[in-house]
Amino acid sequence: MSGMVLVNGREDEALSALDRGLSYGDGLFETIRFVDGVAPLWARHMQRLQEGCARLRLPMPAVSLLEREAALAVQGRVDAVLRITLTRGVGARGYAPPPEPTPTRIVAAFPAPAADASAARDGLRTRLCTLRLAAQPALAGLKHLNRLEQVLARAEWNDPAIAEGLLCDMHGRLISATMANLFAVIDGVPVTPSLDTCGVAGVARAEALAVLPQAQVRELPLQEALGADELFLTSSVRGILPVQAVDAKIFAPGPVTRMLQQHWRRLGFRAPDVPMESA
Amino acid sequence: MSGMVLVNGREDEALSALDRGLSYGDGLFETIRFVDGVAPLWARHMQRLQEGCARLRLPMPAVSLLEREAALAVQGRVDAVLRITLTRGVGARGYAPPPEPTPTRIVAAFPAPAADASAARDGLRTRLCTLRLAAQPALAGLKHLNRLEQVLARAEWNDPAIAEGLLCDMHGRLISATMANLFAVIDGVPVTPSLDTCGVAGVARAEALAVLPQAQVRELPLQEALGADELFLTSSVRGILPVQAVDAKIFAPGPVTRMLQQHWRRLGFRAPDVPMESA
Repeated sequence: MSGMVLVNGREDEALSALDRGLSYGDGLFETIRFVDGVAPLWARHMQRLQEGCARLRLPMPAVSLLEREAALAVQGRVDAVLRITLTRGVGARGYAPPPEPTPTRIVAAFPAPAADASAARDGLRTRLCTLRLAAQPALAGLKHLNRLEQVLARAEWNDPAIAEGLLCDMHGRLISATMANLFAVIDGVPVTPSLDTCGVAGVARAEALAVLPQAQVRELPLQEALGADELFLTSSVRGILPVQAVDAKIFAPGPVTRMLQQHWRRLGFRAPDVPMESA
Repeated sequence: MSGMVLVNGREDEALSALDRGLSYGDGLFETIRFVDGVAPLWARHMQRLQEGCARLRLPMPAVSLLEREAALAVQGRVDAVLRITLTRGVGARGYAPPPEPTPTRIVAAFPAPAADASAARDGLRTRLCTLRLAAQPALAGLKHLNRLEQVLARAEWNDPAIAEGLLCDMHGRLISATMANLFAVIDGVPVTPSLDTCGVAGVARAEALAVLPQAQVRELPLQEALGADELFLTSSVRGILPVQAVDAKIFAPGPVTRMLQQHWRRLGFRAPDVPMESA
């Protein structure tokens, strides 16, 4: 199911069972899409990893080292998803972080998900999850290894026709999907939820914000989002995907979604057969 | 730093780097104190693990199997702390739990912490942590592998004279210490915080509640706790420990603390030199 796995630079899937990444989820990860051996959003992934390391006080590996290991891991794959996991390494039992940790670095390549032209064109069917995300400002925005909320949310449905679940916080504000960030276009203005108390600050979300200068980052009550003109998901692995439905509520892909999909193609992502903006 | 480690019954520290326990913290653990090869609270640990498995929909291993592996791992150690970690095993990339997981089972023995007679007699100095625990009813009470909150809280101080940090929720209600549960004796009544929205439902807390029929489980505002007659911590590893101070506020060990310490000795824990209840 996976390709090459490098643990601290060695081609070896074995990790110490005493690693703090396992014991406590004490670490971070990045999931990076490669196309023809190139990761168009690589710089943003490295920036986020750097910021996460600063917040968790983990030493950031040299980007040049990660580049070399990434190239080695994806070698021979036309399309790949690379997961970089960085943990605080093996330490004495107990929560106290070792003063000078020896981090564990895992670089693993996986096959990219199959291109789904109909998802890109018509959108994804989604559902609203029952689970609500907890508010924890100390961890909000980070792509850390504590992901049981997402596991429980994703376990809420089995229907393969439902591609994603949308998650609210405890106050009924929409935050994200289980594996993607979310934008709503409301009266022509793109809005994406602020992630000050929960959620993951996605790399694709950052790229979308960079090309949507008029976009607002703010609280987004679910009811307001359900009245949006367009709803779409941003994912570093799957790109820009319209939301076709949230439970029974139907949406149509709109011009902001199409413009971003075109931008994604210009970045180098070989998107499936998606209609051009005004073709 | 550790003794024997068994991964799925094999004496081997190696774990797959693709285990969901590492990828997502998708699993549970127990930390069990052994004295002379016996774990006085074993049955309670097994009960909690069983309940955690039911809530996370993980298959519970046979208790007889865990018993055998525990005995093997602690063999030769007079005192030991055993950590049992149970994860959802290796799965395809993505949050969706595999429909029929092959769990990973890690049984690892560690040296027990040195007996600390002065801590048992006079109590621990503690501090109030800045970090506040997030409210997540879906995970509250579970001893799951998502423990970044505890890691961040424990990283708030380095002073070795401070043995523990106390944690409130976002509403200023006291919940626990970073590695222990907490009781306050208020007007003669033992009170321990309810754990419906956050915290870990400790095995030592359950034992203490079983021998304190008059105890209340309820919300405990920090200010009320700071006015208590007695404050003590319960830990399956360290037993019953008085709180001597929370920052500048001083407490004295009281009769409920001493009675529980005596109960712990009767359970078989060789407590350090603690004064007898009325000796």
